[in-house]
Amino acid sequence: MPRYKLTIEYDGTAFAGWQRQENAPSVQAAMEAAALAIDGEPVLVIGAGRTDSGVHATGQVAHLDFRKDFAAHVVRDALNAHLRPNAVSVIEAEIAADGFHARFDATSRSYLYRIVNRKPDLALERDRAWRVPVPLDAAVMHEAAQRLVGRHDFSTFRDSKCQADTPVKTLDSISVVREGGAVVLRTTARSFLHRQVRSMMGSLVEVGRGRESVGWIEEILKAADRTRCGPVAPAEGLYLVSVGYEPRERRG
Amino acid sequence: MPRYKLTIEYDGTAFAGWQRQENAPSVQAAMEAAALAIDGEPVLVIGAGRTDSGVHATGQVAHLDFRKDFAAHVVRDALNAHLRPNAVSVIEAEIAADGFHARFDATSRSYLYRIVNRKPDLALERDRAWRVPVPLDAAVMHEAAQRLVGRHDFSTFRDSKCQADTPVKTLDSISVVREGGAVVLRTTARSFLHRQVRSMMGSLVEVGRGRESVGWIEEILKAADRTRCGPVAPAEGLYLVSVGYEPRERRG
Repeated sequence: MPRYKLTIEYDGTAFAGWQRQENAPSVQAAMEAAALAIDGEPVLVIGAGRTDSGVHATGQVAHLDFRKDFAAHVVRDALNAHLRPNAVSVIEAEIAADGFHARFDATSRSYLYRIVNRKPDLALERDRAWRVPVPLDAAVMHEAAQRLVGRHDFSTFRDSKCQADTPVKTLDSISVVREGGAVVLRTTARSFLHRQVRSMMGSLVEVGRGRESVGWIEEILKAADRTRCGPVAPAEGLYLVSVGYEPRERRG
Repeated sequence: MPRYKLTIEYDGTAFAGWQRQENAPSVQAAMEAAALAIDGEPVLVIGAGRTDSGVHATGQVAHLDFRKDFAAHVVRDALNAHLRPNAVSVIEAEIAADGFHARFDATSRSYLYRIVNRKPDLALERDRAWRVPVPLDAAVMHEAAQRLVGRHDFSTFRDSKCQADTPVKTLDSISVVREGGAVVLRTTARSFLHRQVRSMMGSLVEVGRGRESVGWIEEILKAADRTRCGPVAPAEGLYLVSVGYEPRERRG
């Protein structure tokens, strides 16, 4: 059974998230329906990151097995043909090493969060960015964000429904940059807690708008107390942009 | 009657174009409905560019008159409140000089055309870009585009329904640049013929994919013959990005 590694782009607006659910459309179910149409038997599609409802991806990674050997580009094109008209696209397919696991083998996940910092409604970026109408100081947000780098108990930035074994995670990097009328956060870690990026972004906005100080971020982090978190940023500004893997020896 | 100059962003997907029509939603009608809700009487909204169905704008300009004096930011916010949930947003409102006319006073119009140059379907940029699956050479497209600069009879690049008095127009500038996986055309003129930008882009793609030479663009331009035009590029990649006006003395 050949295994394929897929890089997937999706608009999360119409989905209840990546993960298959009863009675709600998911990206995973859309992928599995396309894979079933190709294979003829049910195919499990395992994603690296379980993005929430409304969250987008430009570089989600998943794997699946087909019973038949197909060239990688045939897998990509056939999946896309069956995915239409869903707003999900396989941008790359590769033949994976034996035993490759999109979720367990991932060594880093990178997210981007996009704010459009203006008062007028969003017409072209509706559902693609968070509109923050009050002026934000991106430099101060960046400075505050650096207090989150490293190994910490991130309980403050963890949704109550999070199923991770531990709230202790290592944040490898985080940056906040103004890009014209937008304020863009980029962050990378081996893994994140449920709603961690949106919780961090929502809290950083409290600093960027001048309601809280840079030191406050460190204070609420150290408190390790969910009730200290700022308002969680909405899903529509968040993008899973890439998933990293260690180069590995081909087995067998 | 104070006159206001408005800068407007819209997602053209759900509209039959800028111009008011019987039995089809238009951006102008959405704007006029919002203005009526504010004024209480019908208000005419005049746009600088009559964009086609599916064409977007990041900087359309329009003017309107209200019977009452409002601060400019009040006009902007009130229009946006009444425009919801249409994908139309007034990003700026200014008090205009007496007699200002968004269409007749415009001295330049700038458009952007966005191609995503890849085979996989577009998930996040669906309806926002033209997907061209074959490799494009943007440098060659740029070179060919330079043959279009200046004053010419643009009949080749003019839709049969065009109502302009003359096919002779002056193209001020045009560039084609590769930006990662995208190929972006930018062009400015005092005014354009109906579907001129999409006709030029469609023809330039014939050059960029290697089907036609750089000299062919000059040949079809000189032929001044609509039947010589390449396939017209689809609406969804086109954006009206700005409209220019001469600085003028305030009258009265």
